Amino acid sequence: MKYHEDNLVPHKAALINPAANVVNEDVCLPAALIKKSALENNIRWMQHYADTRGVSLAPHGKTTMTPWIFQQQQQAGAWAIGVGSAWQASIAMASGIKRVLMVNQLVGKANLTLIARLKQKYPDIDYLCCVDSIANAQALSAFFNAQGQTLDVLIELGVTGGRCGCRSAAQALELAESISGLPGLRLRGLELYEGVLHGDNPQPAVEALLRDAAALACQLERFVDGEFLLTGAGSVWYDVVCNVWLAAPKPANCRIAIRPGCYITHDKGIYQQAQDALMARDSSACDAGGDLVSALELAALVQSVPEADRAIVNFGKRDSAFDAGLPQPIAHYRQGKALPAPTALMETVGIMDQHAMLKLKPGAQLQVGDVLLFSTSHPCLTFDKWQALLLVDDNYNVLAELATAF
Amino acid sequence: MKYHEDNLVPHKAALINPAANVVNEDVCLPAALIKKSALENNIRWMQHYADTRGVSLAPHGKTTMTPWIFQQQQQAGAWAIGVGSAWQASIAMASGIKRVLMVNQLVGKANLTLIARLKQKYPDIDYLCCVDSIANAQALSAFFNAQGQTLDVLIELGVTGGRCGCRSAAQALELAESISGLPGLRLRGLELYEGVLHGDNPQPAVEALLRDAAALACQLERFVDGEFLLTGAGSVWYDVVCNVWLAAPKPANCRIAIRPGCYITHDKGIYQQAQDALMARDSSACDAGGDLVSALELAALVQSVPEADRAIVNFGKRDSAFDAGLPQPIAHYRQGKALPAPTALMETVGIMDQHAMLKLKPGAQLQVGDVLLFSTSHPCLTFDKWQALLLVDDNYNVLAELATAF
Repeated sequence: MKYHEDNLVPHKAALINPAANVVNEDVCLPAALIKKSALENNIRWMQHYADTRGVSLAPHGKTTMTPWIFQQQQQAGAWAIGVGSAWQASIAMASGIKRVLMVNQLVGKANLTLIARLKQKYPDIDYLCCVDSIANAQALSAFFNAQGQTLDVLIELGVTGGRCGCRSAAQALELAESISGLPGLRLRGLELYEGVLHGDNPQPAVEALLRDAAALACQLERFVDGEFLLTGAGSVWYDVVCNVWLAAPKPANCRIAIRPGCYITHDKGIYQQAQDALMARDSSACDAGGDLVSALELAALVQSVPEADRAIVNFGKRDSAFDAGLPQPIAHYRQGKALPAPTALMETVGIMDQHAMLKLKPGAQLQVGDVLLFSTSHPCLTFDKWQALLLVDDNYNVLAELATAF
Repeated sequence: MKYHEDNLVPHKAALINPAANVVNEDVCLPAALIKKSALENNIRWMQHYADTRGVSLAPHGKTTMTPWIFQQQQQAGAWAIGVGSAWQASIAMASGIKRVLMVNQLVGKANLTLIARLKQKYPDIDYLCCVDSIANAQALSAFFNAQGQTLDVLIELGVTGGRCGCRSAAQALELAESISGLPGLRLRGLELYEGVLHGDNPQPAVEALLRDAAALACQLERFVDGEFLLTGAGSVWYDVVCNVWLAAPKPANCRIAIRPGCYITHDKGIYQQAQDALMARDSSACDAGGDLVSALELAALVQSVPEADRAIVNFGKRDSAFDAGLPQPIAHYRQGKALPAPTALMETVGIMDQHAMLKLKPGAQLQVGDVLLFSTSHPCLTFDKWQALLLVDDNYNVLAELATAF
């Protein structure tokens, strides 16, 4: 339905001036910002890490669902882009991505139909998805064989109490045996997501799962023609995945692919904590030089200072993730001029749908109309609040509007 | 940026067949569904309630940000649509809405510029926003007076520890005095949002705030030419707002406007609880006949049943609100056929970005590929995950795709 015939304001972070600067209030705020230099740093850093370790990088694209970012990752050397659904796969393919790793089960008549049409439309794109049950393998076989197509699949290994995935090597082997007898399916390897393991110190369990997976891969090798793909690793344990799998016995022709997603923008919350822990334990990450830096910020306006120690800012749950710590103020501007960093004197203590509440300490010089920049925690859930993000340079000049696809 | 040149899949709930039925898997799932009959019931019910009480209805549009829904609300008799930002105001205006109540402060150069352009483009639309500080009033006056425009404003009354708004009648009167001397501003009335009051039994505090507001309105009357607008009420206390304000002394020419938002789709979580409480205390709501019903559902697919008591469904935090209770299964289909309602045998117990985890009781006959429908809690945060919602009839045939504007 066409609701905005005049195209006056294409999205909520509307650019009012052609040469827009965010901190100069040339943009309707709140807005979500991608700092280009930080993004480029992160793309380069993680690609360098993967190259140095001798593994392939398949960044999880579900984090951003931003085609321009997919393209930057691919151009920098990413071997594939990971997605979580058939529809996300369609976005990646239409964005020019050459290999799409759907790290999820493919179910549902429309989703299967969509993938069949995409395989027909983009015959050169390598598309893979995961299976963890004979029932699903049989359904996929029946459908794709009837289309005269072959679907490339990975067996997913899971853990009890976790998400998807076979719960034992025996189950996985039985599934591989089944797949080998089903037309229209081709087994390509083994997938897991170790991030489902939680607790005070999940590292031993993560390492045990990875060793089990490598051993299982050796048993599955006979079902796979050509290269065996062994893939895991979100943004928290990618070093451990490399350590264990590079050292373990595995199929002779084995490609290891890691799939971090949130590294792309990093954050100043849960992923900073995870990366700090990784840098402390992983000498190859330290040797790589530099580190990931936060690339996603929110810009918002002070709309009310109703009490001496309380300010209300005009972003809320409709604009930002709030499930893993609230966005915190990191910079303060008034009429385009930077004021001292507000971090010691202001803290975000509450959030509603359209508002955030700041607790102010004595000395916080906050006025109605001031611009604040906020760091974020858990980038995924901020991305999906925006139909467009603003790509900015280090001085917060707007370089481009980046469309998202949610 | 153009990322989907072939328009193969306009959004994630892609229709694969022209005559699409959701439970027949003709749609890429997950999808967010609006049940047309339920939506129409809710629009009718709330308009009838407001009409019966003799108050105006200004539904809060930020809930849905769905222009087609705004239009239905206006056609049914809504006096205005409420919004939370300048950009949301632009969407409402471009959707054909004739009166836009921005229940928020207007700050920031670009936001002011946008409103000025909208006032020029849509001179017949009545736009109002809130002020709660002299500093903001002065900034608005300087800007709009320089444009040769007059901005209509409401004074916001707040509570200590709450959100925006003057903290006392004295502050509000001082602000009104200031506004009366500022060119380019016209005071139209008084606004509050009683929903910021929480606690075990907030009703006495809500009633006290409403009485204070009515008394303040009498004091503000002399600053307002013509009709005095007195507005409050989210979806939880709209009966109490009517009760107190209809009974209280107030300005002679006073329009009371209530602004519920979430009633439009209702839910089976926090808003059902709120409405149940309202129906129990409000005889005029009972006398209206019928009630609000849940109009927003999620449709998703079972992608894995990895353990006897655990199933994984293909929706997650990227698709649904999760801050006020998780979506719960209410219907179960297999290959288009309804199976017994699953409510007693399945419960959603966990959610990740793309997955939800169900706990199954013995007897739950769930298979990979089954379709489940889920009720929701806190509709706002589900709406903003979707660029399009599917309008369906009672048999889940797709009637239209409704674009959202976030």
